[in-house]
Parts: sequence; structure tokens; C-alpha cells
Amino acid sequence: MLTKSQVKYIQSLNQKKLRQENGAFVAEGPKILNELLATKNIEPLAIYGTAAWWRENDDLRNEIPFVAFHEISDAELERISFLSHPNQVLGVFKLPAVNLHDLENRVSVLIDDIQDPGNFGTIIRIADWFKVDHIIASPASADAFNPKVVQASMGSISRVNIAYEPLDAFLDRYKAVDIYAATLDGMPLQSFSKVTRGFLMIGNESKGISIEFAQRAKHRLTIPRYGAAESLNAAVATGIILSHLL
Amino acid sequence: MLTKSQVKYIQSLNQKKLRQENGAFVAEGPKILNELLATKNIEPLAIYGTAAWWRENDDLRNEIPFVAFHEISDAELERISFLSHPNQVLGVFKLPAVNLHDLENRVSVLIDDIQDPGNFGTIIRIADWFKVDHIIASPASADAFNPKVVQASMGSISRVNIAYEPLDAFLDRYKAVDIYAATLDGMPLQSFSKVTRGFLMIGNESKGISIEFAQRAKHRLTIPRYGAAESLNAAVATGIILSHLL
Repeated sequence: MLTKSQVKYIQSLNQKKLRQENGAFVAEGPKILNELLATKNIEPLAIYGTAAWWRENDDLRNEIPFVAFHEISDAELERISFLSHPNQVLGVFKLPAVNLHDLENRVSVLIDDIQDPGNFGTIIRIADWFKVDHIIASPASADAFNPKVVQASMGSISRVNIAYEPLDAFLDRYKAVDIYAATLDGMPLQSFSKVTRGFLMIGNESKGISIEFAQRAKHRLTIPRYGAAESLNAAVATGIILSHLL
Repeated sequence: MLTKSQVKYIQSLNQKKLRQENGAFVAEGPKILNELLATKNIEPLAIYGTAAWWRENDDLRNEIPFVAFHEISDAELERISFLSHPNQVLGVFKLPAVNLHDLENRVSVLIDDIQDPGNFGTIIRIADWFKVDHIIASPASADAFNPKVVQASMGSISRVNIAYEPLDAFLDRYKAVDIYAATLDGMPLQSFSKVTRGFLMIGNESKGISIEFAQRAKHRLTIPRYGAAESLNAAVATGIILSHLL
């Protein structure tokens, strides 16, 4: 049974402000739940599963004893789910502490105002695939713990550190790290060798990287275009560049 | 003024069956409309724009005289639009004839049951960027003229030929062309040199490529994974592989 206040609380987690006030976010579906429950970085607070889901996952009750477990009906899941097709289970998790470390000696991704939750989530998944441990996003970027971003990240959000920082001040702190800016007027990607440290900066879906950051970048790189499309999707560009540079 | 039958007709174009019966599809927003109107491959049938849009595009009335032009209110656009945020203009276009040619001497993309309209549209945009002129999709794949696919393709749908074919029969007809199958158990992408001809096959978002096609493939290739994500998004994988092979 779901109480009214539980429903209200979960629905409130669709808003960034209330996620931050409550220090919590939502993830849904068996696959993503299993990924999040398998990591130590993210702490579960409550799990709302249907009878079908609990039949498969009853062991959890012993494994993580401090979590609130709820068996709910399909209709109840429908009420709290953020998905257009609710999928067996919804979990509430504690927002993880941000833990940036050793940025001088690795490759990190910098996000300059990526707006689309699907793009952001896909970039987190790409970072996880290529073992990029840190994403630093401008404050105006989509929020990484928006349910749509969590969903698109397919569980990778548990393995990538994501910090929100005004990028100008952030770059001032890391002046020794080279910036690789993805732009439409840079050097061809193929002219760059592999790198082991640096900031790959990806810009907004329609405006690209702000001029001030493009000017600060030591390297501007461009994925050579052979056809006529005006641009590539921001997440696709991130994948292509990381695949080449790493 | 919109008539009831116009509204009903446009709404019907959300269904594949009715798009095919009517030989028409919908595209929206100034940017995509301008791209489609600029190509010769796609014929406009009717344009429904707000007063604001017509002020900017009044020349069109002379340029393409056989098209039906309609000035509509924002509320009317809201009624016919498939977007969550309607954007000034909606066009109805004739479904283009499929024109596959010279597949033996170029690189084409084969789609084995990509379901997500956003992924399919992004793949069309990637094909356009890399000048891959043909996409051959299995019949169970998302329909390329679904309004969501058209939107995600950002106008690239006007420059890429897209055919739906049962892939087994199609491959029987092109036995001389090498298949490069994107799988999770193939040779590292970096071990492949550039190619000028071949079929790059991309599989379903969750199931990947059907076993029968993976077995038929001369080459299986895999994007090396350094981290822990279970998979990459299908469109991202397409972009990374094309960027490497072309």
C-alpha cells in the first residue's frame, strides 16, 4: 500500500530543487535497479516493486536490511512512475557525494549547457564505456539526476562522478590541463594522437561551445564531414571523439 | 482556417499504415522545413504556418506554386502538431521513392530492428554526415517517416535513401558485399582499416544483431570497452564505427 505522502514525496523528486532538498533521486526498471544496487557508490533508501518483481528479488530484503521495502500493485506503480511504460520497480536512492580526484592525470568530459536529458544520459553511458570517471557540467546543463537522465544513462550514473561547476572558475583552477573543444571549425579529429589527460569539452546542442571557452581551448577538434548534415548529435560526437582519443 | 478533414488527415499521418496509403508524411519546425524545401528529393504537398512564420517565408508562395499554403493560428498549430512544443510550421510532404543504386560500390548501413524513433533518426543524421547514402532497414524497425524519426533526423531524411527489406532476402541478393556486424564479441574496431564498400549492420537496442545475421557477417567488430557500461547506444555505436571505417 502506498500512502499519499509517499506518492507526493516520489513525485516531488521530478524537480531538481526538491531532489537537492531531499538529497534523493529516482531510478526505475529491473535492469537499472540491479545496476544501482550492485554498486557501493549509491545508497538505496526505498524500493517499490510489484509482486512479480519481488518474487525474483526477494533476497534483497536480507542483503540490504536498512532499506524500506514496499510491495505495490501495478496501478500504484503507474501512479508514481515517471516512465511512459512503468516497469516493475521504482527505487529511491540517496544523491551521491561528488568526488572529483586527480583531474590533472586523466581525461574528463566538460559539458557546456547540454539541455536534452536523453543526450546527457547517453553521454554518461559513453563516459562509463570508455572509463572516463568524471563529468563536469555547467550549472545550466540538464540535471544528471533528472529521472529521464538516469533512465538514459542505463545505470552508468552509478559509476561516473558528475559535478556541476561554473566552467570559467573551474577552468581557472585547472589551468595546467589542456582543453580539447569539439567545434565545427577545428582541426580534423584524425590529426590528434591518443591522449591520457585533458578536458574534452562538448557544447550545447544548438549553440555549441560558448565563444569564451572555445577561445580558451588549446585544441579545437572537428569530426570530418563528408556529407551534408549540419551537425552531429552531441552524444554521438562525444562517443566518436572519445573513441578516437582514448 | 483549418477544416476538420484537414486535421483528421494530418493526424492520420502519425500511423505508418495511413502514411503509406496516403503516400505522405509530416515534418515540423522552421529548420527542418527549410532543409526539406531546399532538396529536390522530397516534394511538399501542403504547408501550415503561423503568421509569424509566413512573414519570414512569404517568398515560398512564388517559388513552389503547386503547394497548398495555409496560414493558421497558434491554437490550430497546437491541434495538428506532433511535437510537445509546436514550432511555427508543419509541412506535409510526399513519401519519396526509394532509389537504391550501386550498393556494391559503397558503404551502406543495415538496420536489424532498431525500435527507438530517436535512435533511428539519429542514425539517419549520422549517415548524412558521413555521406552514407543508403540505409536498409528490417521491416520490424521503426518507420523512418514516423514524425519522431523525421524530427530526430533534423532534415537528413531528405538526403538519405531508406529502404525496408527483409534482410535475409536482401543479403541473398548482395552476396558479394562484405558484412561488418557491430557485436559485443567481435574484433576490436581499431584492427580494421578504412573501407570503401560494405554493409555495416547495427542491431536492436537490447538484443543486438540476430544470430543468423551475425553468422553471415564476414567481419564482426566491437568498440573496445575500457569501463563498465553494458553497452553503447546504437546510434552512438554507428557514429563511432563509421567515423573509424570511412
